[in-house]
Amino acid sequence: MIRIGIVGYGNLGRGVEAAVTKAEDMTLVGVFTRRDPASLITRTKVPVYHIEDTAKMTGEIDVMILCGGSANDLPTQSVEMAKNFNIIDSFDTHANIPAHFAAVDEASRKNGHISIISVGWDPGLFSLNRLYGQAILPQGDDYTFWGKGVSQGHSDAIRRIEGVLDARQYTIPVDEALQKVRSGENPTLTTRQKHTRECFVVAKEGADTGLIEKTIKEMPNYFADYDTTVHFISKEELDRDHSGIPHGGTVFRTGTTGFDGNKHVIEYKLTLESNPEFTSSVLTAYARAAYRMAKEGSVGCKTVFDIPPAYLHPENGEWLRKNLL
Amino acid sequence: MIRIGIVGYGNLGRGVEAAVTKAEDMTLVGVFTRRDPASLITRTKVPVYHIEDTAKMTGEIDVMILCGGSANDLPTQSVEMAKNFNIIDSFDTHANIPAHFAAVDEASRKNGHISIISVGWDPGLFSLNRLYGQAILPQGDDYTFWGKGVSQGHSDAIRRIEGVLDARQYTIPVDEALQKVRSGENPTLTTRQKHTRECFVVAKEGADTGLIEKTIKEMPNYFADYDTTVHFISKEELDRDHSGIPHGGTVFRTGTTGFDGNKHVIEYKLTLESNPEFTSSVLTAYARAAYRMAKEGSVGCKTVFDIPPAYLHPENGEWLRKNLL
Repeated sequence: MIRIGIVGYGNLGRGVEAAVTKAEDMTLVGVFTRRDPASLITRTKVPVYHIEDTAKMTGEIDVMILCGGSANDLPTQSVEMAKNFNIIDSFDTHANIPAHFAAVDEASRKNGHISIISVGWDPGLFSLNRLYGQAILPQGDDYTFWGKGVSQGHSDAIRRIEGVLDARQYTIPVDEALQKVRSGENPTLTTRQKHTRECFVVAKEGADTGLIEKTIKEMPNYFADYDTTVHFISKEELDRDHSGIPHGGTVFRTGTTGFDGNKHVIEYKLTLESNPEFTSSVLTAYARAAYRMAKEGSVGCKTVFDIPPAYLHPENGEWLRKNLL
Repeated sequence: MIRIGIVGYGNLGRGVEAAVTKAEDMTLVGVFTRRDPASLITRTKVPVYHIEDTAKMTGEIDVMILCGGSANDLPTQSVEMAKNFNIIDSFDTHANIPAHFAAVDEASRKNGHISIISVGWDPGLFSLNRLYGQAILPQGDDYTFWGKGVSQGHSDAIRRIEGVLDARQYTIPVDEALQKVRSGENPTLTTRQKHTRECFVVAKEGADTGLIEKTIKEMPNYFADYDTTVHFISKEELDRDHSGIPHGGTVFRTGTTGFDGNKHVIEYKLTLESNPEFTSSVLTAYARAAYRMAKEGSVGCKTVFDIPPAYLHPENGEWLRKNLL
């Protein structure tokens, strides 16, 4: 059995708890938290420990799955944990991946561990499809569309506006753009042509909704470059109709082969009812790979690009060749 | 530069020739054929050698890409070539993959070479997506749809019927079945519910078209389990409208996560104007991986399941993490 530890018990941590329960070759040793362990009861009644007690349990955990956020938790947590454990994280601040990789690599190598960072669907499965697509169709174009789904970052940006009580923002791919790409015509698309943004906002009593709407639509980086729709709804409507965390998207590689320019379209699409639970499932599959590669003596920081696919699946090579090839 | 050899100069071999030309890190050393080399002029004017002269060129070729057929060529050719070279093949007789793997593995290991078999899109990229899908969503179902595309095997089966001059058969996925799977309802589908077959047949003068149609529709394994449509057309129409070799298909993994059964759909879709040219492009990308793994001392038979994705792409890990992750 692969012995798993979870650091952080938010949506992602709870998703890993569920995923490990369903993996026949894994067992969950404990959840590690910054909160008072006594204040937290896990869904599966697995023990809860304080995060500062991890170092005492180095011999009891094969892979630690880090479920904190990329902004404040992972830059330090992944490096710290990599000193004592093989780790998996879902670091998703694309621009900072090279620096995060270097720091985790150093900590892992010094202590003889393996780490796999930036695991999930983007970065993660979408990244894999961008890589496979470019390798197979070197003459071509990449397209990534996100949604329809909830963007936590954009929802938070709206919540910070004065007069806003709560908000939920959906990123929606433009159907016309999807169709153009799917047809193989390799269009050049602006930010505005690719996605729209739809916002459901609960305003505080007496707030200036006109001003809130204007502030959202003109917000640089987040909304100014998009066609944005704003709906004002009640707190009850928000809780009733918008409490889910769906997401997804599509990666395309379109290109030509041969001397006559034959066209090809590779399309990889995810439709996810729960963004954190799906991400957790990817993290858990890569924990299996980390365990196996560590047993073979592999050390240092890796990404999904470095992991042979077979390492993710519970069955062995013979079974995979017979049943899935 | 990675030095490539091609064995066999049919559609697949010509596709590899084009793909190697477009790869900046590869050079094509020669084409090897069973025909009289003097009778064959290649598209890029690359030298042609007799297949029996391969053994003299072991020091000049890094990876040999085998472009023969799975029925008659590869079972012996892959094993023979693996004695002298690192090889890639597209062996696609699913039921015989374990035996083919064992034979190629033995020949490769004895002689210190690496081989990657069953490379292409099915087996190949579709297999990869079945594996990733099962690993990430262990509670779920797999679906593979093929087409719309030309099935060479079914076209050949029609051509063998008395009174038939030529024929082209298209495999077509049933749209209703695709929609059901895409919606996440995990349907159980019969063979007939998944695909239809459409045949374009040129009959010989005076042939009994009624009997030909009946023979096609009742042919066991090939057509009897499908709703089949037969069109009789002229040789001119066949050549004008049905000379392409398009294909493609879709692999789905649908499943649930968490304790509340949240649904997820993973969809991987290929739309290919030229089946052989796309397959050739996959073979060529895996030749790069074979070259790199051989340099690291890897030996024996592998499949797409064993190859770290990064080995397929011409750029290095640092570039990939910065640009694609």
